Amino acid sequence: MSEARRYDTATLTRFVEQLFEGAGADAEVARVVTRVLLEGELLGHRTHGLNLVSRYVGGVQRGEVKARAADLEHLQGSGIATLFDGHYVLGPYCVERALACAAQGAQAQGIGISVVRRASHIGCLAAYLKPYTDRGLVALLYSSDPSVGLVCAQGGIDPVYTPNPIAAGIPTQGEPILLDVSMSSVTLGLVGQCRDAGTTLPHAVLMSNDGMPSNDPRDFFTTPQGSLLPLGGQAFGHKGFALALLVEALTSGLAGHGRKDAPQQWGASATAVVIDPRFFGGLEAFTAESSFLGQLVLASRPLDPQRPVRLPGQAGLKLREQALREGLGLSPAVLDALNQTAAQLQLAPLSQ
Amino acid sequence: MSEARRYDTATLTRFVEQLFEGAGADAEVARVVTRVLLEGELLGHRTHGLNLVSRYVGGVQRGEVKARAADLEHLQGSGIATLFDGHYVLGPYCVERALACAAQGAQAQGIGISVVRRASHIGCLAAYLKPYTDRGLVALLYSSDPSVGLVCAQGGIDPVYTPNPIAAGIPTQGEPILLDVSMSSVTLGLVGQCRDAGTTLPHAVLMSNDGMPSNDPRDFFTTPQGSLLPLGGQAFGHKGFALALLVEALTSGLAGHGRKDAPQQWGASATAVVIDPRFFGGLEAFTAESSFLGQLVLASRPLDPQRPVRLPGQAGLKLREQALREGLGLSPAVLDALNQTAAQLQLAPLSQ
Repeated sequence: MSEARRYDTATLTRFVEQLFEGAGADAEVARVVTRVLLEGELLGHRTHGLNLVSRYVGGVQRGEVKARAADLEHLQGSGIATLFDGHYVLGPYCVERALACAAQGAQAQGIGISVVRRASHIGCLAAYLKPYTDRGLVALLYSSDPSVGLVCAQGGIDPVYTPNPIAAGIPTQGEPILLDVSMSSVTLGLVGQCRDAGTTLPHAVLMSNDGMPSNDPRDFFTTPQGSLLPLGGQAFGHKGFALALLVEALTSGLAGHGRKDAPQQWGASATAVVIDPRFFGGLEAFTAESSFLGQLVLASRPLDPQRPVRLPGQAGLKLREQALREGLGLSPAVLDALNQTAAQLQLAPLSQ
Repeated sequence: MSEARRYDTATLTRFVEQLFEGAGADAEVARVVTRVLLEGELLGHRTHGLNLVSRYVGGVQRGEVKARAADLEHLQGSGIATLFDGHYVLGPYCVERALACAAQGAQAQGIGISVVRRASHIGCLAAYLKPYTDRGLVALLYSSDPSVGLVCAQGGIDPVYTPNPIAAGIPTQGEPILLDVSMSSVTLGLVGQCRDAGTTLPHAVLMSNDGMPSNDPRDFFTTPQGSLLPLGGQAFGHKGFALALLVEALTSGLAGHGRKDAPQQWGASATAVVIDPRFFGGLEAFTAESSFLGQLVLASRPLDPQRPVRLPGQAGLKLREQALREGLGLSPAVLDALNQTAAQLQLAPLSQ
């Protein structure tokens, strides 16, 4: 990777936008989806970055995923509370529209909320937040997928719900705090990576289909399927389980479209909540407090002197800054996939 | 306990209200605080129930805690976003006013949020929720206490922030789902109980002041103090840590009053968010989904055949129903403390 060609983000942006437009996306949709996937890549979320471009373009080409802004349906809204039906439009476009709409409400009255049902794959939740924290807003995202069951209830064996992440961007006087955590102990992605690499997981975060805790990824990929344990694991999983039910309620519950509808197509229920501190104690007091707390955290003695305590998002923002300065290196696999997609669309490849 | 006198809730309500009124509380404040503490007791949260009455009355008598409704200051509000300064008024009154105000906003426009700074002790967050779920509303509560540091950052040793609970009430077609979970592995209350009982904690959820994980409560009560580990423990504590920072932002951050102000008096920052499903997919679709998910959970195979999987709040609601039907038994210690408080105030005791 260190010898790989580095690309500036303007070049990558133009290239990826052309791929989406070549597949039939509106310019606005192509712009938003490209920005979110590139942002995921910049923050180091390489499983939720530009590797998704070819998958998304393929979905559009097969007609499974829509790519026109007009297909995102605004079902109802009070000005601050809005419901969209994504009709399986490219997920990053759905989520960004939901966030922008919630931010309008927040800036008008202090808080706004938008719920989207049936968004296509929405990528990395952390990738949406910085434009909002840059404007002094607190932005929260929640998601679930009612077509999938992966995580068991506390004390249960069978997989019932999804990892149901909570993400949030918190403005400070400096870089924002960006958090993005699933309510399961680990994500399915990590389990798949360990299976592919032939390794075990570092902890027994799985439940086999006959009720045995396990760190062997093969115990998840069985018939019937195993489960991921809730955040908190065997001892404290009642907490992650409870929070996951809350995320289900805020997403699929409010959406009015969930597991009861037995959807067959992968599709997210996503909820955006945006809060404007100016309607409460003020932005200055807010960021003074978040920065003060951040400093308390960073000043706390580390367990390992070689590993100072970090704030959520800090490592990703450092990677992002470096990539913006020095260019972004792409893995050979991602570069190949992007160029294959370009070739299919009769577009020029990225120069290597 | 099984032979103890059981009291009907009307008798207990009148008795406790009289104690607060005798100490100088407004009738409205006495009514709300009594209802919340009794509700905590009914739900089985006996560390956050009627045992708090004597402590609260003592605080009012010493002038540390205010008990007049007019002392809860409405600082600003947009109709849906409101900031209160509690000025250390009895916490349950502050939180209930915040919730009621947020619910008004939710019923008008879909969502409402109220933030309170400097509430006195607020009891058990789960005890506030059922009146809102009974009206078909989703109610969330968050709290932190900027005068206290108990929990370490992930990878850190020093105690920095509070357990920062998230509570929520989720309406279903039947009993609500009521969750109330701290973002630390355990609460300070449990650590104190184990110390008093001379036992260890069931897991190594503490960090000694020299950075050793421990299950010995004595390693917390040292000088300098030890820490509670974040939810997720040593392996996955980055998740509980991140969520705790979010709770700090939503409470002390929005309040504009937090750790940067170095408050010396115990006092909560609390935030209430209420959402009305009627502004989204509708209450019927919401409760159909929450009930369907609840049934999926309850039908999942239990790890231990003797312990069927339960929903958050289910056990407490069953205790509550039983107490409403058969009367509520009080522990001798709580009964004694209540009657001593009554005697101080020259009021008649509860008959034994």
